[in-house]
Amino acid sequence: MKVEYINPFLETTTKVIETMAFTKVTAGKPSVKPNNLTWGVVTGVIGLAGENVKGNMVLSFDEKSILSIVSKMLSEEFSEVSKDVIDAVGELTNMICGGAKSALSEKGFRFDMALPMMLVGKNMEITHLGAGPTISIPFTTESGKFVVEAAIYESK
Amino acid sequence: MKVEYINPFLETTTKVIETMAFTKVTAGKPSVKPNNLTWGVVTGVIGLAGENVKGNMVLSFDEKSILSIVSKMLSEEFSEVSKDVIDAVGELTNMICGGAKSALSEKGFRFDMALPMMLVGKNMEITHLGAGPTISIPFTTESGKFVVEAAIYESK
Repeated sequence: MKVEYINPFLETTTKVIETMAFTKVTAGKPSVKPNNLTWGVVTGVIGLAGENVKGNMVLSFDEKSILSIVSKMLSEEFSEVSKDVIDAVGELTNMICGGAKSALSEKGFRFDMALPMMLVGKNMEITHLGAGPTISIPFTTESGKFVVEAAIYESK
Repeated sequence: MKVEYINPFLETTTKVIETMAFTKVTAGKPSVKPNNLTWGVVTGVIGLAGENVKGNMVLSFDEKSILSIVSKMLSEEFSEVSKDVIDAVGELTNMICGGAKSALSEKGFRFDMALPMMLVGKNMEITHLGAGPTISIPFTTESGKFVVEAAIYESK
């Protein structure tokens, strides 16, 4: 996985969450994901498919951060991971991947996006078929944490 | 989701599993998936992304069927869902979706495929973002059962 794939995800994630949830987002240092388990309590996944690049992007929230973000997004108080909260994770997954897609397209990496899927549950085992590592970027908000994970490879 | 999306998955699944595992496969009647839970103990998922169609294909095996299929595929006895078995589910997901992609392409539905992901665990909650239903096709082999699920929509 190329380093130049990472920055567009980092920048777009910050921008999308700050814009949608009116909250300051701080990105941490990207690192190689050490295991095959979902990080948070609710996780969005989207497939990327193109002629020269393919993979998956994952967006996973702890409960505090996603309840706060969706409450702000929808101007309504959410106190549990309901269907609306799960769907919002899918929409955020779409928005973040869409922003990264535009930025990567300018660098010559072109792909279309599949349909977001949402997984509910912590420590669910999920493996991406392929030789390379998954990169994880941690983010902190005033009310919790979330991560973006990218498993993206050049396709033959 | 259009009915004409279904048959290519049904036909390719039968052909791929029969060819790879030298076993007779019988397809059952497709129906609307009644819940958001993974069906089997190990599940492959792949994103489909195109200009006029997008979605996800899911391939989920009970333990008996996947151990028998992978043992036959790799000419080695597997008695538990090991890394080799999980990777084989990813490869089968790729092969089946690739076959359906060729058949659908002839009908004018063109898409690229993302990277397969493999989920380990029964009754994991997985939702596809989108308005339409997910179609489930059951398959029976001499040593167990599996399902193919398709959540595929025309994209705007």
